[in-house]
Amino acid sequence: MARKSVTVLVAGSWGTALARVLADNGHAVTLWTRNEAQAKEINEQRRNSRFLKEAELPEGITAVTDMEAAVSGADAVVFVSPSSATREVARAARPYLRRDALIVHATKGFETDTLKRMSVVLSEELNRPTEEIVDLSGPSHAEEVIDRHPTTVVVASSRLDRAEAAQDLFMNDSYFRVYTNSDIIGVETAGAIKNIIALGAGLSDGLGFGDNAKAALITRGLAEIARLGNAMGASPLTFAGLAGVGDLIVTCTSRHSRNWRAGSMLAQGLALEEVLEKMGMVVEGVRTTKAAQRLSEIHSVEMPITQQLYKVLFEGKSPSEAVGALMGRVRTHENENLNL
Amino acid sequence: MARKSVTVLVAGSWGTALARVLADNGHAVTLWTRNEAQAKEINEQRRNSRFLKEAELPEGITAVTDMEAAVSGADAVVFVSPSSATREVARAARPYLRRDALIVHATKGFETDTLKRMSVVLSEELNRPTEEIVDLSGPSHAEEVIDRHPTTVVVASSRLDRAEAAQDLFMNDSYFRVYTNSDIIGVETAGAIKNIIALGAGLSDGLGFGDNAKAALITRGLAEIARLGNAMGASPLTFAGLAGVGDLIVTCTSRHSRNWRAGSMLAQGLALEEVLEKMGMVVEGVRTTKAAQRLSEIHSVEMPITQQLYKVLFEGKSPSEAVGALMGRVRTHENENLNL
Repeated sequence: MARKSVTVLVAGSWGTALARVLADNGHAVTLWTRNEAQAKEINEQRRNSRFLKEAELPEGITAVTDMEAAVSGADAVVFVSPSSATREVARAARPYLRRDALIVHATKGFETDTLKRMSVVLSEELNRPTEEIVDLSGPSHAEEVIDRHPTTVVVASSRLDRAEAAQDLFMNDSYFRVYTNSDIIGVETAGAIKNIIALGAGLSDGLGFGDNAKAALITRGLAEIARLGNAMGASPLTFAGLAGVGDLIVTCTSRHSRNWRAGSMLAQGLALEEVLEKMGMVVEGVRTTKAAQRLSEIHSVEMPITQQLYKVLFEGKSPSEAVGALMGRVRTHENENLNL
Repeated sequence: MARKSVTVLVAGSWGTALARVLADNGHAVTLWTRNEAQAKEINEQRRNSRFLKEAELPEGITAVTDMEAAVSGADAVVFVSPSSATREVARAARPYLRRDALIVHATKGFETDTLKRMSVVLSEELNRPTEEIVDLSGPSHAEEVIDRHPTTVVVASSRLDRAEAAQDLFMNDSYFRVYTNSDIIGVETAGAIKNIIALGAGLSDGLGFGDNAKAALITRGLAEIARLGNAMGASPLTFAGLAGVGDLIVTCTSRHSRNWRAGSMLAQGLALEEVLEKMGMVVEGVRTTKAAQRLSEIHSVEMPITQQLYKVLFEGKSPSEAVGALMGRVRTHENENLNL
């Protein structure tokens, strides 16, 4: 494998974990952050203690705070900012990007105001066709990737050559396995909306409803995500794959999931502001709930789980009433119509 | 709801939990067991301590050991024996069954020697058309149902009137929600084979591989189950529903799952015989692995997870080698082809 120069923006937990994969694969990795102290810690102590306490980062990763130095000449640039910051980070990077640089993103969420997918935001700000953008997604807690636990992801792009170029960068024989997928609409939609279902799963667990209830919620959640994705032009098959059910499972059942933890804190009676303060990290599911609620109206898609979560987060509905409303939808002769 | 007389055969954990649901719904429930001491304990102490330690059983459940007394005159009979005993139990019940009794089963597994689905076995032994048989399945740990945690299941039959009759018996407003489904082939196949994936998930967890790896295994397992089901005449949609992904999630991620526990013990180096002895209950996934391995050959369907599990259970392959073979299937330019 040819050694490439790859830049990762920004140095959150997932960005840092992906930087580590790229460094393990022999690439020269630049990790951009606005925070001088964080850059110093990464370069001098080989740690990013705010996001990944235990991990020691290899010498192949260099942190910088200057955007021109970070991006100029890079063969590939990987955007891993929170969804709310992607447009701004892309705008800052654009003047320095090589015209032929491979553009990958690994951000799960929509832009809240415009409801745009991340590949569309990047396409606009970088002045590139959307087909050139690659999305990396799938069941992948950063905490496990940094420990080199076996992990499987997809790289999605309408252009197979771009997806394969990303696959070549990230895949290795020891712990990081990468599949290609041509349905970037489905992969981006699934990756964004699963965080809503994870909030719901956290609520259900926090209320003590048990594994049977949670499995039913995840299953109905998957159907809900697939319905919206279908209306937005995605393939239903994507939702049965790693970026769909795979990511949904890991997000809804793992103690590493921020969205699950946020949901379980809400169930314990904490207000949204308190939860967000306690987390100290972005909880994508919160803003995604707002975006998905509007998308379901625009596309006339029924999304009962999203709707109930919206009421809990933004209209003060109690978690037990919301989950009760979802669980108690008992009618005579209900068919299991997944409407895929 | 009209009060019916319903008989459940036999008094294992799931049979006892279903009997409790039926009694909660106001039906007169007879629970059949061969074991005199168990019947006495149920009738006199309202407990079935071998299978459900904590639960107190309501007065509406009467245990009997005589098959004629159990089955004669019953409006509905629910078979919940281990898959290996279903034929024998059905044969014993047949002489006493009312001609118009509703026949339901809730057994997850194939008959090992013949590879037949449970509805086919019951059809043969009870001399009824297979279309009259109903299968109850879905994400439903007995331990949670007996505690009245919210649970959602499907009742599947080619004849909607039969599925709806079963729905009427089991559904209630407080904790047990029942959907109908017409694809009994899909529901029975999904319910049987998910136990194999649960064994694999237990192996993966037992080897310390983490949540990312387990989510990938479950996702690929779902694709594998759907491929076989499709070849056997099932609808792919069933595998995206409660009996498919819903049951797979609960079986692979819950501490209540016997198959998961068996897999994790195998990972710790115990031999199959020791594991089965320690469990003290039937582990359906073990015999289902044998059946599915043969079905995959008959229908020419690729089932890599089933194949590796077969080697661990019956050919002495080490668990770490088997999971490594599944995880390490890294090739250049692998597409995520779910082949649904």
